This record gives sequence, C-alpha cells and structure tokens, in this order.
Amino acid sequence: MSTNHQVSVAVVGASGYTGAELLRLIVGHPQMRLAAVYGHSTAGKPLAEVFPAFAHSELILQAFSAEAVAECAQVVFLALPHGTSQEAAYQLRLRGLIVIDLSADHRFDDCALYERVYGAKHRYPKLLKEAIYGLPEFNREMIKTSQFVACPGCYPTSVALAVYPALNADLLSSLEVIADCKSGVSGAGRSAKVNSLFAERGETIQGYKTLAHRHAPEMEMSLSTQRPIDHSLMKEPIKVHFAPHLIPMSRGILSTVYLRLKPQVNLDVVRKTYITAYNIEPFVTVLSEGLHPTTLAVRASNRCHLGLTVQGGLLVVHAAIDNLGKGAAGQAIQCFNIIFEFEETLGLSQVGVYP
Amino acid sequence: MSTNHQVSVAVVGASGYTGAELLRLIVGHPQMRLAAVYGHSTAGKPLAEVFPAFAHSELILQAFSAEAVAECAQVVFLALPHGTSQEAAYQLRLRGLIVIDLSADHRFDDCALYERVYGAKHRYPKLLKEAIYGLPEFNREMIKTSQFVACPGCYPTSVALAVYPALNADLLSSLEVIADCKSGVSGAGRSAKVNSLFAERGETIQGYKTLAHRHAPEMEMSLSTQRPIDHSLMKEPIKVHFAPHLIPMSRGILSTVYLRLKPQVNLDVVRKTYITAYNIEPFVTVLSEGLHPTTLAVRASNRCHLGLTVQGGLLVVHAAIDNLGKGAAGQAIQCFNIIFEFEETLGLSQVGVYP
Amino acid sequence: MSTNHQVSVAVVGASGYTGAELLRLIVGHPQMRLAAVYGHSTAGKPLAEVFPAFAHSELILQAFSAEAVAECAQVVFLALPHGTSQEAAYQLRLRGLIVIDLSADHRFDDCALYERVYGAKHRYPKLLKEAIYGLPEFNREMIKTSQFVACPGCYPTSVALAVYPALNADLLSSLEVIADCKSGVSGAGRSAKVNSLFAERGETIQGYKTLAHRHAPEMEMSLSTQRPIDHSLMKEPIKVHFAPHLIPMSRGILSTVYLRLKPQVNLDVVRKTYITAYNIEPFVTVLSEGLHPTTLAVRASNRCHLGLTVQGGLLVVHAAIDNLGKGAAGQAIQCFNIIFEFEETLGLSQVGVYP
Amino acid sequence: MSTNHQVSVAVVGASGYTGAELLRLIVGHPQMRLAAVYGHSTAGKPLAEVFPAFAHSELILQAFSAEAVAECAQVVFLALPHGTSQEAAYQLRLRGLIVIDLSADHRFDDCALYERVYGAKHRYPKLLKEAIYGLPEFNREMIKTSQFVACPGCYPTSVALAVYPALNADLLSSLEVIADCKSGVSGAGRSAKVNSLFAERGETIQGYKTLAHRHAPEMEMSLSTQRPIDHSLMKEPIKVHFAPHLIPMSRGILSTVYLRLKPQVNLDVVRKTYITAYNIEPFVTVLSEGLHPTTLAVRASNRCHLGLTVQGGLLVVHAAIDNLGKGAAGQAIQCFNIIFEFEETLGLSQVGVYP
Repeated sequence: MSTNHQVSVAVVGASGYTGAELLRLIVGHPQMRLAAVYGHSTAGKPLAEVFPAFAHSELILQAFSAEAVAECAQVVFLALPHGTSQEAAYQLRLRGLIVIDLSADHRFDDCALYERVYGAKHRYPKLLKEAIYGLPEFNREMIKTSQFVACPGCYPTSVALAVYPALNADLLSSLEVIADCKSGVSGAGRSAKVNSLFAERGETIQGYKTLAHRHAPEMEMSLSTQRPIDHSLMKEPIKVHFAPHLIPMSRGILSTVYLRLKPQVNLDVVRKTYITAYNIEPFVTVLSEGLHPTTLAVRASNRCHLGLTVQGGLLVVHAAIDNLGKGAAGQAIQCFNIIFEFEETLGLSQVGVYP
Repeated sequence: MSTNHQVSVAVVGASGYTGAELLRLIVGHPQMRLAAVYGHSTAGKPLAEVFPAFAHSELILQAFSAEAVAECAQVVFLALPHGTSQEAAYQLRLRGLIVIDLSADHRFDDCALYERVYGAKHRYPKLLKEAIYGLPEFNREMIKTSQFVACPGCYPTSVALAVYPALNADLLSSLEVIADCKSGVSGAGRSAKVNSLFAERGETIQGYKTLAHRHAPEMEMSLSTQRPIDHSLMKEPIKVHFAPHLIPMSRGILSTVYLRLKPQVNLDVVRKTYITAYNIEPFVTVLSEGLHPTTLAVRASNRCHLGLTVQGGLLVVHAAIDNLGKGAAGQAIQCFNIIFEFEETLGLSQVGVYP
Repeated sequence: MSTNHQVSVAVVGASGYTGAELLRLIVGHPQMRLAAVYGHSTAGKPLAEVFPAFAHSELILQAFSAEAVAECAQVVFLALPHGTSQEAAYQLRLRGLIVIDLSADHRFDDCALYERVYGAKHRYPKLLKEAIYGLPEFNREMIKTSQFVACPGCYPTSVALAVYPALNADLLSSLEVIADCKSGVSGAGRSAKVNSLFAERGETIQGYKTLAHRHAPEMEMSLSTQRPIDHSLMKEPIKVHFAPHLIPMSRGILSTVYLRLKPQVNLDVVRKTYITAYNIEPFVTVLSEGLHPTTLAVRASNRCHLGLTVQGGLLVVHAAIDNLGKGAAGQAIQCFNIIFEFEETLGLSQVGVYP
Repeated sequence: MSTNHQVSVAVVGASGYTGAELLRLIVGHPQMRLAAVYGHSTAGKPLAEVFPAFAHSELILQAFSAEAVAECAQVVFLALPHGTSQEAAYQLRLRGLIVIDLSADHRFDDCALYERVYGAKHRYPKLLKEAIYGLPEFNREMIKTSQFVACPGCYPTSVALAVYPALNADLLSSLEVIADCKSGVSGAGRSAKVNSLFAERGETIQGYKTLAHRHAPEMEMSLSTQRPIDHSLMKEPIKVHFAPHLIPMSRGILSTVYLRLKPQVNLDVVRKTYITAYNIEPFVTVLSEGLHPTTLAVRASNRCHLGLTVQGGLLVVHAAIDNLGKGAAGQAIQCFNIIFEFEETLGLSQVGVYP
C-alpha cells in the first residue's frame, strides 16, 4: 500500500509505557499524523498530565470507540492488555482499518494454543488466522500485504533474532534452547504494584516465572516457522527453556541464548552465517568479534545488537534490544513502514541514546 | 530504667520499609528479644514472604491487639501511618507499655498545630503532652526518663542537626532557613503507587510538595526549642523554606541547608562551633574541611555526616543520613538504648554499607 | 546564512559524552552531513568501538588538523576540554570555518574574568570578543549573524532560564540567587576517575565544589546581560550562590533556584511573567500549576521544563534539562539551525525518552 | 584454635571494595581487634579519606611490611590483587601468622592449572598445597585446623552452592553446567576504568569474558571435590559453561544455573535434597516453593538464598549472594570464626539490608 501523503493514525491504550513510546515515535515520524489517543483509566485527561514528556502537548486522551476511530484514523495501534485487545481489533477490522496490535492476542495462529497459554477463550478465532506475526526479519513479505499485524513480544523478538540464523542454516545439534533473559522494569508495565516499586527493584536482580513464562511458547512458534523443510532436525520439536529476570534499569532486554552446535561448526562459520543472515537488515547488527552487546547502545532505538561466542561446542548469543523499541513500539512502526512501502527506517533511524 | 536482661519488644506496623529496618536492627541488638510482629494487611503471613531478607525466619505477622502485645512485650515500636498511630499508642500506654512511636502523631506538643498541619483531629491530645520528641542530640535527658517517645521525621532529623549548632551559638543573622533536601524513594513508602514505580523514579529527579511539606513546621518547632533564651533574634520566628526532592536511590537523605551568617563569622568559627557541639555525639561527625558528605557513607547506619562551606556570608551545611536509619528506625533504637541506660551505640555501631 | 543543501559538519573531541550526543543528533539531522570525526586519544579507532551505539557505523576517528577539517567541513563543533579549545578555534576561524564551541573557553567577553575563573592565560583574547554566547532564548538575533558561537555550560543554561523572566520583569527584591543544582554523572565526563565509578556514584548523592564552581561566574555574567537598563536593582551585582550535586543518574540536571520576590508579587503574576517570556520559545515549557519538572521528561531532548512555586515571598523555580541535550549538544544544534536559518527545531523536535 | 580474648587482625590491600567490606565487618566483630590497615597507593592517608564511611575513624593506612604486621597482628586478611598476594602470603606464613587470602592466588592445588589460568608463574607452589579452599559448606573440617585459607571467588561461591547438592546426591544426568551469572559493578573493582564509570554501567547490562572467565576452572575444581567416589558420572569431567554479566547495581550476584536431571528426578526430590544438604548451614537458605531469590535480600550479609525450579528434565537453580559478603569478606570472616572456634555466625548474623 503506497501513499504520498501523511497517514492518520490512532493509539488505543496509550497510558502505559508502550503507549508512551508509540506516541514519541509517531510524533517524530514524518509520514504519520497523530489523529487521536485513547486511554481507559485516563480518558478525559490531558496527555501533558499522563506523560510529563508531553508537557507541551494539548492532546486529551479519549474513551475508545471504534466508530470514533474509524472517522479520524486509517491505522490503529493497539497497546492494550491481552484479552481486551480482541474486541477492539474485531471492531476496527470490521470497519476496514489497518490494525497493528502490540498485545499478545493475535500472535498465535492456533486458537487452542492461545487458549492453553493465556488461559482464556479467544472470542474471534478468525482474527488469529488473519493476523500476520510482525517480525519483519522473518515475515517482511507477508507484512507488506497485510492489514492486520500482531507484533511479537519483547523477549520473543530478542530470542528469535538470536537463534534464527543458526537454526535456519542447520548449524545446531539440538533444538533445545536455553534463553536466560534480563529485562528492564518497564517490561512489568505501568500498573501500581509493590513488586515494581523503585525500592523493591533498585539495586537488585530477581528471576520470575522461571520456565513458566508465556513468551516461551511464542518463541517456539516463531522459531518453528524458520526451520527449512529439509532441516536435519525436522522431527524434533523446538524447545525453549526460558528464564526471565528483572534488573535495575528502566528499559532494555539482554537475552543470553545457549545453543549446541554440530561438531564441525566453529566461530568463523557461525559469524559468517549471522552476518549473511542480517546483512540486509537495517536494524540488526552483528558486533565485531570480541565485542559484547550492551543495552545502553540500543536504548530508545529500534536496533538489535548481537554478540557471538563459541567454545566447547556451545554457541552463546547475546542479543540486546530496547524492550519498548524493537521489542514493541519501534517494531510496530517498522511494520507500518513496510505496509505503506515507506523506507523501512523512516522515523526509526535514531542511534541508541548513550549514555 | 536500667536492666540486665534482654528486653522484650514488639513492632506494630511492620510491613513497610521502616518496619523492615526496625526488625533488622532489633534482631541484631544484643539486649532485645523480638516478642511479636504486627501487620495490618499482612496479618497471618510469614515474615519470610513479606520481607525476603527474612527468608530464614519462622515468624508470622499477627493482627494487632493491645492486650496481646501487653502480654508479651515491654516496649512497642509503632511504625504506623500518622492518624492510625494515636489509637494504638493510647491503648498501649494505658497498659503501661513503653511506646516508641515513629509516626508523626505525637511530635508536636501543640494540638492545634498538629491539627492544622495534618488536617485532622487528634483523639488523645494528652498524649501530645506526654510524648518526648526523640532527637537524642537535643533531648537526651528528657528521653532518659520517658516512657513515650515520638521519633522525629527523617527530613527534620537531618535539617535540625544541620542547623542546630549555628542557631544555638547565635551565629546567624537571619532565622530564615532554606532547606533543599534530596531523599531516596523508600521515603515515599511501600504502598503501590504509579509515582513510586522503578520506571517512574529511575534515572530522574523531581521536586514535590515544594514549600508545602508537613515536615517544615516540625523543623521549625524542633529548632525553636534549641534557641537559647538570650538569643539575639529571640523575637524572630524560625522559618524553614523546605523543598524536598526524590532522587533515584532507595535509601538516604542529603539535606543542603542555606544559612545567613552574622558579618564576623568565618569558616573557622563555624567549624569550631559544630565540632564542639557534636564532639560527644557518637553518631554525628563533622567531616574534615573540604570533604562533602555522601549518603552512601551512612547507608544502613545510624550516623549523620555534616559538611560545612562558608562564602560570602552564606553558610551551606550538607547533612547526610539514612532516612530509614538515623531518620527512623536507627534513631528509635537509640532512644530505646537511652531509656534503658544501655550504651547508646548498642546494636547501632555499624559503619555505613559502602559501596 | 541560508542554504538549501546539506551542510557538511565535523566534530572535534568526539570521544566524550558531549561528543557522542553531538554525533547522535547530527546523524539524525536532515540538513547535516557528518564529514569527519576527530578524537585525540581515540584517533585511528573505529567509532563503532569507541561508542557501542554506533556499532553499525564505519566511521574512523581521526587526529585533528585544522587543514584537514577545512577541506571537508563548513561547520565545526568543538567538544574539547577548556584550555585546549582555544587553539583549535583559532586555527579554524583563521580558515573561515563556522565554529560552535561547547567548551568554556569563549563564554566570557572579559579576558581577565576568564583567566581568574579558569586559572590560566587565554591565548587568543580577541576570540572572546568575537564569540557570541549561544543561549538562543537570550541572544537569538546575535547568533543569527555569528560565525563563532560559545555554547553555555549545562548548569548555567538551566539556571539562566529559571531566573531570567523574574529578573527581566523586575519582580525580585534581591539579586542574590541560591541555585541548588543536581546533575547526572555524565556531567563529570568520560575520563577514568575513581570518583565517577558506578560503585561510588550509585545509590548516593553528594555535593561538590559548593559555592566554588566555575559555572557561578558564568551564570552571573549571563544573567547580567538580561537586566534591563531601568531595573530597580541596577546597581546591585547579581550574585549566584551555586551548590552543585551529583545524583545517581546518567543524564539530566534539575536546578532548584530560590529567589526573593518584591512584596506585591504573587504566584499569578509570576506565572504570567514566565508564560509570556517563553511563549514563543519552542523548547521551554512552563508546566501547569502544581506540576513539578522531572528530568526524565526531557531526557535525550532539547527541552527545558519549568515549575513555579511561591510562598512567603519566596519564588522557587525548578528547571529540568538534559545536561547533554539543552545543556550541551542540543543547544549547539539549535544555534546551528539559527545560523543557517533552518526551522529552529529541525532535528531537535524529539520528545523526552520516558521512561 | 580456641581463644577467649580478642584476636588482633590486620588487613592488607585495604583500599579496594573487598578491603572496605572487611574493615566494616571487622570493626563490628566482637572478638576481633583491628590492629593495622595496609594500602599500597593509599599508604599514609587517613582511612576517613579513603573510605567516607569511616569518617569518624582516626586510622591511617600504612605501607605493608611483613615484619610490622607480625608485631601487631595474629591474623592477616589479604585483599590484594592476584599475583601480588603470593609474596605477602609467603612472608606472613614464614612468620607464623594465620593468613586468610581473598585473592585468587592460592585457590588451586595444582600449580600448572594456576599458571595456565592466570597466565603467570606462581613463585611459591608449596603455598598452594598448604592453603585450604575456604568454602565452609564444603571444607569446614579442614578449615578448622588450617592456618592458611584461600577464600573462593565470588562467582564460584554462588555456583558451587547452587550445584553442590544435586551433584553430590547424584541427581544429574550430565556434568555440563551452564552458569549465567549477573554481578553488581563492585565486582569489577575500585580501579579507575572508563568501563566501570557510572554513565557506562548505569541503565545497562552487558556480558563479558563469555566462556572465558578465570572463575570457570575454579568452579570445576571446587565442584570436582564434591563428587562422591561412587558417583554414576565419575568418569565425566565437570564442565562449567560460565557467562558473567555486569548489571546496574553496586553489590550482589545472582547466578542462574542450568542442570540436566536424571529422568526420574522431580521437584520434590530436588527440594528435599537441597533442604537436607543445607539444613545445618547457618547462611544458606532454600526459599519456599515458588519464591525467587533477590540479591537485595542478602545485601551486605553473609547469606545465600537458593530458589529451585524443575521442568522438562531441567533444574534451574537461582543463587543470590552479596559478592562482597558471602562472595568475599563475609566468607573470610566465617573462616576466621571456624579457625578460632567461635560461633560461626559471630559478627555475621546481619539480615540483608532491604531495601
């Protein structure tokens, strides 16, 4: 879908951290016009009050209605909690709007899997078939012709990008993946919880939902689509052992992924494979040998930095992203650019905010 | 009150940060026996769950009742919110227990002042007359014979210690004090508020309640008691312009206090005055000339570090304390030691946890 | 100086934090072309190694030579330490390049004052006369026709913006200003010092150079130019009592400025004065009544947020900026835009990165 | 060695973070008398200046000489860099002093292994045979009769405690261990390095020395001693794939260790094994099912918290310690207590400083 005028967009569920980042990117995007902003608990409040970074703005958050959105916007970004996103997506698709959903509601094709993982019925299973999984590095061509994109989770984005080249090039001797991930606290959302208080999260690290986080099945689903049909381990399921941790920073994810290599595969082979895989990707960079990704270098950007180490048959991939950038809002904008055939980096070319 | 066996103590309102710090200090105090721990929302829960630092403990939080406390404890520390502390204090004093109240409920003598500042009636005005303001550097002798201590607020402790020697020695040309104070986020309590989230408080500083914080009248009251009767500015009211700020650390307060000196007063005079004033104080240290207090140096201790700068007739005093230590729980234990005629540093001799 | 093609620019002294921020802003500026990057200790190194945020870049840092710069660039940003900037500025001006100096070397007109404050001879006193103090809110017209701009210090920018409207509108009863400022640690530079280590600066706050920092005379100089000729306190010197502090965050400055108001001046008058003064300013926002600036809201932006409190004849102004943004690199780009008659917000319209 | 008077101790290499923590614990230990403090670069300086937490102290750091130490102290804690500790240890042992070495110089029995791992000759290979590896949970009996203890590294302490019960009870199907460890920045020491600056380490996480850190062979050595002779995998080498990371906190280590269980081993079996193994240990606590260790809960203490998760044949152990506490100075004091037959928790009973 190509256009030469600004596209009018709306954000629904704008009062969380993902919403804030969407707004920041949208107002800086040369081909977007922010038509309206919707919030549930914040309806009626000035944006300047909800997010102090918008102190100079005169926007007011509104209560969501699909009709109202349809009148002012062509594209809608949904930054709603899973479970509540379905209804909005359904109503908006019914009215022909392009929907870019950042919730977990439409990432799976398989309704039964969704219901098992999220523990609740999905009201519109047909939407699951329609939605394209919005990881451009995997699905660029399908996103291009889509009108409904389900953006990946933050952890799954980093782990998928870390594993994909080795998996795709059949370098692995086992499809059991250990993903030890460390996230900034904004990943826990903006709701008032004792567990997310500064004094609880400052100066400490803690694991949570070890081997029991909902993003593990998403990682397995996403990676499964990247295994070529003649893969030597075609019959093995891809299994991700996922251990997330919260660390004392606001933004960023570093995923440390442990993979077993086939006997003959050394660091050179691995580096060439990764560099080739991401050569054309504008946002994924394989760091020079010996360098380690740091989340600070990708802060507030849509970039992903990868570091590679091989020793004793083990491949360790470090992948750094901003959980709100490439892990959420940035990637949603990237999908928007693809759908509208803009330069993929439009409004996203920022370098990480360092320090 | 002297004793040669362990004193049984209870903590009421133990599920906040002040409560946690009291428990930490009590279990490390050689002359205290922790008899019981009371929490409102946490009654029935294991302490190990409420405070992970007590993972090895088998204590269970209980619902408060004055009768139950009276049966097991001789001294009660109240770490309740202001307003709710009055009733508990009354019931416990009625039963003859020694009460050390860390709330703001009994810091003022003057009931009208309390009601104006806290915007609510005080149910037991007589308690206000009975309670001794628990700042040992001012009131040691009165604490010694008291059975009811009202511990100072965190900010007022730091500002009072910063101003007292200059005021008392009549070095000031004006009794208008500017107190620019910076506190760690634990000062905002352990309740679930968006404003106290890690992602809101990390990597930022913000003022709040500028010139409108309830601790300003407490500072004025506390300092007023330290002005000798022949003070050259006896007729001027002491006015504290107090601007508190929250900074991205869990614990600690640094107060920067600006005072106008009489013409002839230079740094030497000031230093001698402060050193003399605190010479015998076990917890207050005037740093060597040129050094600046850092809250890290007093972290998790009962200490107060003071730094002095004079230039152009202005005296700037930096005072660093731990808001939960000398600013709350540590000072409460210090009062306990004074009442029971223990060495004042008993259980409080720790050096700051640095780094 | 108007142009309709990209301007070629160079950065000298690019290996510090100000250099990094300049590079980030320059590569995101639609009318700039980064021609070359110079570093002293980093000459010969890939930018990707010096700043991990530039992992995708192929730029190499070079050793500075004025000749080389003159061949490739039209404008030069100097991010050198004071003292060393003079020679570079002289050599570049000699060759007719436009120089935007971020060091302290050319902020004063008065050579004797420079030498007293910085404790060293200035080798090119004539440059001091030529350089325009690059605070657009004060000097926009002079910057427009300048070829040599001396950008203000980070603290002076925030304090000048906080004080200016009240001073200019003659609302003050005294020209003694107390400026209690809190800075992120990047303000201490990127050199390896024990004092700047994470473990020394984390979880703590400390004052430094109290009433003895070189930015105080700069504040006094800058504000003095803003006093109208018929000011009621024309004969009083402007005196800034400046107490800087380091707090545990990487970026940002919050300045809390204490000013004495004339008797009749209330909050309404003050608010109207400030709003009028900054009405047309694209980067300065006076927050709604009751709101307090937070540095997070201006992080990585060129914005300044102001909060106003009045009580008892005292005006407290809180001013939040990013020390590397409006306090350094952002302001330098703003001056560039003014010189080249670009939209003043070009490349600078970003909203603060929050959280 | 039993005593009923205070033991005089000295600290050599006191100007780093481990030295600071040793001093803090020693002055709080009821059976220690701090006889002297030695620093290399800090010789002649007041301790009050080197460590602001000791502002009230009158101690002066001295230049080390074995003779001088022998005259004043019975026990010496060496907090020197590896390589330099050997000479001091030799000189002190020669004079019959009890040496507790916190460096890496005497942790290996095998001189060739030491030289391969540390890349330098060991000048006194006999010392390697004499030194006892000071992990009380493994070696309590040998420590008891020792006069020369080599304290474990911080990472190895946490990983050894995490793996030991499963290994010892023969629950594992493979001896390949993945240890993904996250450390506070004090672990990088107190030397002035750009990489350790606040602005480089704040708000970010980064891996380093992935699969190439010197602590991996130490972990393998230490764990190998805990494999019973009839272990089902007696012939397999123990291999630790060790990936350390630095996270934005000053103190603390969280190690996440991934272990393969034998088919029949479930969470119940694992929990019973760990609880039994550490039942008598005063400092190691297995958290209740479902709880995750947080480093904040063990901050500034000698404690270790363990969390256990089992799923799909994988055991994930989270182990939290303070890198300067149980990972260094605390453990050294614990060894001291064992040698002198004091209560093992003497001076170490502190609960973690939370928050």
